[in-house]
Amino acid sequence: MFTLYSHGSPNGHKITIALEELQLPYEVHQTNVFAGEGQTSEFLSVNPNGKIPVIKDTETGQIITESNAILLYLANKAGKLMPTEPTEYWRGIELLFFQASTIGPMFGQRAHFTIMASETVPYAMKRYVEEGERLYKLLDEFLMGREYFLNDYSIVDIAHFGWLFTAVHMGFSFDKYPNLKAWYDRVGARPAVQKGVTIPSGLPTLPPRKDLVAQPV
Amino acid sequence: MFTLYSHGSPNGHKITIALEELQLPYEVHQTNVFAGEGQTSEFLSVNPNGKIPVIKDTETGQIITESNAILLYLANKAGKLMPTEPTEYWRGIELLFFQASTIGPMFGQRAHFTIMASETVPYAMKRYVEEGERLYKLLDEFLMGREYFLNDYSIVDIAHFGWLFTAVHMGFSFDKYPNLKAWYDRVGARPAVQKGVTIPSGLPTLPPRKDLVAQPV
Repeated sequence: MFTLYSHGSPNGHKITIALEELQLPYEVHQTNVFAGEGQTSEFLSVNPNGKIPVIKDTETGQIITESNAILLYLANKAGKLMPTEPTEYWRGIELLFFQASTIGPMFGQRAHFTIMASETVPYAMKRYVEEGERLYKLLDEFLMGREYFLNDYSIVDIAHFGWLFTAVHMGFSFDKYPNLKAWYDRVGARPAVQKGVTIPSGLPTLPPRKDLVAQPV
Repeated sequence: MFTLYSHGSPNGHKITIALEELQLPYEVHQTNVFAGEGQTSEFLSVNPNGKIPVIKDTETGQIITESNAILLYLANKAGKLMPTEPTEYWRGIELLFFQASTIGPMFGQRAHFTIMASETVPYAMKRYVEEGERLYKLLDEFLMGREYFLNDYSIVDIAHFGWLFTAVHMGFSFDKYPNLKAWYDRVGARPAVQKGVTIPSGLPTLPPRKDLVAQPV
C-alpha cells in the first residue's frame, strides 16, 4: 500500500497515472500546494522542500519525494514499465533526468511568466516561450518514427505526459508538432492515463493570459 | 575507456570529478557551449539537445547525456560511490533528481538574470535570488549533523558540488549557512575534486554584476 501526497499538477499526475497503470493500491492525501498546504509543519515533516508529489511505501516506511524518483521506485517495485535490457534501461534513466532537469523546470517558468506572475515581464516571457518551443521541436524530432520514448510504453512516457497534459490546459499548444501530438494522443487514450489525471481533483483553474500567450513576444 | 564531451561548467565538473574519484580512464573533447560549439551538426549528432556533458562508453558504444544519469552510469560501472542498501539507494536516487530538477535549473536562472542577461530584469532577479537562498537554507538544514548527503561520500555529493563550486565563483555566497559551508569545504578538500574542477579548462570568465548580486533586490 502507498500513501500519496499529491495535487492536480503536472508532477502529481505522473504518479497517479503510474499507480493506475501498475494497479498498485494507494490512498491519496490531497495537498493543495497552491493554497499553502505545502508549507504546513505537518507536510514539511514529510518533505522539507514543500513540494508534491510525495509517496510513502507503508510496507517499508520509506518516504520518497521527486516525481521521477517515485516513478522509478514504483516501476522497480512492480517489475514493470521500465526496461531491464541495459542499453534501453540507461536510455530511460537519461530521459527521466532530461524530463526532470529541462522539460519540468522550463515549462514551469513558462507557466509562471505567462500565467501566474504578478506583472508582465517581457524579457522572461520571451525567454521561456522560446525555450518551450525549442523543447517541443526537440521532443517532436525525437519521436519521429517512434511510438513511445523507449521501445515500449514506460515511465518515461508517463513522466513526459504529466507536463504536456498541463501544457494543453494552459494553452501552450503543440498541435504544429505532429510526432509529439500523435504520441500525446496515443498515451492519452490509455484508460489508466485518463483516470490518473483526475486524481486528486483536477487542475487549478488558472486562466491563461491569452493575449500574452497567443504568440511569442 | 570513456569519451567525454564537456566544458568547465557546473554539470561538466560533476563528471570529471566522478571519473577522477573512480579512476576510470577517459579522454576529453572540449566543447565550449558558450562559444556555440554545442550547436554544430557534429555535436548535435551526439546530443540533439546541444548540452554538455555527454559521455560515450567506448566498450559498449552507449552514449549518455544528462549529468546525473552519467553519474549513475559511472557509479554502476565501477560499483562505487552509490549505496546498494535499498533505503539509502532510493534516498540517493531522490537526491539526484532533486539536484537535477531544482538546484541546477534554479541556480542556472539565477546566474542568467544576475550575470548573463542582456538587460536588468528586477522581477526575475528577485524571484531567482530568493529561490536560491531558500535552497541554500534547505541544503543547510538537510546537512545539519551530517558529513555527506548519504551516510558515505557518494555521487550525490558530487552532483551538488558541481553547481556550488560555480556559485562560489559567481559570487552567490553561502558563507552564512554553516552546515553547507562545512560540507563544501569537506568535499572540496578531496584531491579528485580539486583535479576534476580543472578539466577541461576552467570556468568561463563571466564577471558577476556585483552591484546587482550584492543583495537580493
